Amino acid sequence: MKSVKIIVCGLGRVGREFIRLLADGADDLEKRYGLHFIICSAADIGGAAITESEAGLDAPQLLIHIRNGGAVENFGRYGRPGLTGEQAIRQAHAGVLIETTPTNLTHGEPAKTHVLAAIEKHMEVVSANKGPFVLFYRELHESARKNNCGLHISAATAAALPTLDVGRVCLAGTRVLSIQGILNGTTNYILTEMGHKGTSYEAALKQAQEMGIAETNPDYDVLGKDTANKMILICNRVFNAYFGLSDITVQGITEVTQEVIAQAAGQGRVIKLIGSAEASGGKIHLEVAPKLLDKGHPLAGVNGSEKAITYVTDTMGTITVTGGKSSPVGAAAALLKDLINAFVQE
Amino acid sequence: MKSVKIIVCGLGRVGREFIRLLADGADDLEKRYGLHFIICSAADIGGAAITESEAGLDAPQLLIHIRNGGAVENFGRYGRPGLTGEQAIRQAHAGVLIETTPTNLTHGEPAKTHVLAAIEKHMEVVSANKGPFVLFYRELHESARKNNCGLHISAATAAALPTLDVGRVCLAGTRVLSIQGILNGTTNYILTEMGHKGTSYEAALKQAQEMGIAETNPDYDVLGKDTANKMILICNRVFNAYFGLSDITVQGITEVTQEVIAQAAGQGRVIKLIGSAEASGGKIHLEVAPKLLDKGHPLAGVNGSEKAITYVTDTMGTITVTGGKSSPVGAAAALLKDLINAFVQE
Repeated sequence: MKSVKIIVCGLGRVGREFIRLLADGADDLEKRYGLHFIICSAADIGGAAITESEAGLDAPQLLIHIRNGGAVENFGRYGRPGLTGEQAIRQAHAGVLIETTPTNLTHGEPAKTHVLAAIEKHMEVVSANKGPFVLFYRELHESARKNNCGLHISAATAAALPTLDVGRVCLAGTRVLSIQGILNGTTNYILTEMGHKGTSYEAALKQAQEMGIAETNPDYDVLGKDTANKMILICNRVFNAYFGLSDITVQGITEVTQEVIAQAAGQGRVIKLIGSAEASGGKIHLEVAPKLLDKGHPLAGVNGSEKAITYVTDTMGTITVTGGKSSPVGAAAALLKDLINAFVQE
Repeated sequence: MKSVKIIVCGLGRVGREFIRLLADGADDLEKRYGLHFIICSAADIGGAAITESEAGLDAPQLLIHIRNGGAVENFGRYGRPGLTGEQAIRQAHAGVLIETTPTNLTHGEPAKTHVLAAIEKHMEVVSANKGPFVLFYRELHESARKNNCGLHISAATAAALPTLDVGRVCLAGTRVLSIQGILNGTTNYILTEMGHKGTSYEAALKQAQEMGIAETNPDYDVLGKDTANKMILICNRVFNAYFGLSDITVQGITEVTQEVIAQAAGQGRVIKLIGSAEASGGKIHLEVAPKLLDKGHPLAGVNGSEKAITYVTDTMGTITVTGGKSSPVGAAAALLKDLINAFVQE
C-alpha cells in the first residue's frame, strides 16, 4: 500500500465531485491500485483547511460541511481563514496538487501560482484548469522537467474523453501524422440540431442556452476558442511542442448557415467544427474551423454534445475515440484517473 | 538515457516487423522516450542468434539476412543452430521478452514455456501471442506478480486497437459496467458485405477468402472463437479476474442469414458479432453472439474489417475506440507501444 498526500485547490463543482469520488471510492482504490489517498489540505477563495495528521482531513465530513453552505476555511479546527492556495501548498506536506480553480485565460491566475509552487516542492500536478497550460506551457513544462515532476492535464483537455491518454499512451512509438477533434460539445450540439432539424443557427443556440448546454455569453464556445485551447494543450503534449494561441488559426461556427448545412447534406456530407493538426514538411499546422466531412469520416457520426478525437498515425493506422461524460463528475473522474496513473505502473 | 535489452522469440511477419520498427525508429525512440533498445537475442524455430556485446545484434543486418532467406541460427558468429527460445531466454541478459511465436490454443506452447522462463528471470513480458494468456492466465499472472514483472498483451488483444490501454489507463478509477466489442475483422467484413450489398453468407465468406481477409478454414473467426479469446484476455485485465473459455458462451455468425439482416435493416438496425461483458449482481457475464444494434449504438457504424470496443462506466459515461491497422505492422506497433510504456512513466 502506498500513501499519497494531496492538496485540492478549488472547491467548485469539479473539486467537490473529486473529493466525493475519493471518499466513496477509498476502499476500492486501495484494493485495485494499492493506493491510499490522504487529503492533507483543501483551499478555496476565502481560505483553506489544513492538517498535519496522518489521517488527513475527513473527506465525508468536509463534504457535508460544504454542502451545508460552510466555507472550507471554517472547517472546524482545521480551518484557516485567509490562507491562500499558494500558502496552503507551501505549508502542506502534499505530494500532489489537484488544481480545480476557475480557468482564467488572460493571466492564468491563481492556478499558475499554484502550479509553480507545487513544482517547486517537486509535487505531481493534476489539473482541470486550462489557463496556465494554454498561456505558459513552456515555462511550466521546463520547470516541471527540472524538478522531475509530472504535469497531468487530462481533465483540462475534454475531461472524460481520453484525448491525451490515447495520443500519448495508446499511440506510444507511432508518429502522429494528423489529429482531428470535435472537442466542444456546445458547438457540436448546435450544428447537429441545425443539420438534423433544419433549425437556424440562432434558434439552435437559443435552445442550447435554454438547456444549459451553452453559456449566456456563448462566444468562448461558438467562436472556436475552447476548441483552440484544447488543441494547444493536446498538441503540446502529443508532439512535445510549445504551441501558443498565436500558432493556431481559429474560425467559429457563427457564420455557418442552415443553407450551407442543407447543401452539404444534399451531397451526403456534414459540417463539424474541427480542431486539426497536420504534420507536413517538418511543421505542424494547427487550425480550428467548420469542415465538410464525408459520411464515412470517423467524426461524421459524432452528434449532439458528444466529443471525439481521431489520430492518424504511420504504423497503427487511424484511431478514433468517442464519448466520455461532459459534467463535473466526468471532469472529476479524469482528475482521479490522472492521479492514479501518476502512481501506478503496470 | 536508459538501455533496455530485449530478446525476440518468433521471427514471423510480426517479429520481423517489430525488429524493423526498432531499427528504423532507434534515433526517434531515444530522442522522444530516452530509451535505447538492444536486441541481445532473437530466436526462431531452428535456433537463435545471441550476443553478449553491449551493442546487441545488428538489427538492420539481421533483417537483411532473414529477408535473403537466411535462418536466424545462421546469422554469422552469433548463430546457434538448435538453441531453443527457452534456452536463449535463460542465456541472454535480457530484461524483456518479446513473444511473437505462432499462437497455439491447445497447449499454448512454445510461448507458455518462454513466458514462464522470462518471469523466472524477472523480465517484462510483451506478447502478441494469445495462447498462454487465454489458457493459463491465472498461473502466469500469479507468477508474474510474485516476481514483480509486468505482462503486456496489447498486441494479442486486437493489436493496434487500444482495447486494454483504454480499459486500464484511460478508465483508471472508474467502474466498468459493461464492455461490447467488435473484435474480429473477418466476421465484421462478412456481415457488412451481407448488409450493404445483399450478399449471402456463403458469397461474402468466399469473397473475404479471396481477398485474404478470411482463412481457408474460417472456423476460428466465423464461429466466434477469436472474439471469445480476445474477450477473455480483455476481461481478465480490465476486471482483474481469471476467466477461462468455460466462462463464456459463444455463438458465431454461420447461422446469420441475409433475410435476418435485411429484416433488421428494415427496422433501421444492423447485426454485428459482439463480444460482451455485463457486470450485474456482483457477477460478470461474458458472451459472444450476433446482436441487433440500433443505428445510434456506438458500434453500429463500425464497418468492413474495422474493429472497435465500447466501455460503459459509472463516472465517465460511455467511451468507444475504433480503428487501428490490422496487419503485421499494426501488431508490431502494438508490441513497441507496450515495450515503451513498460519503461516510460509521465
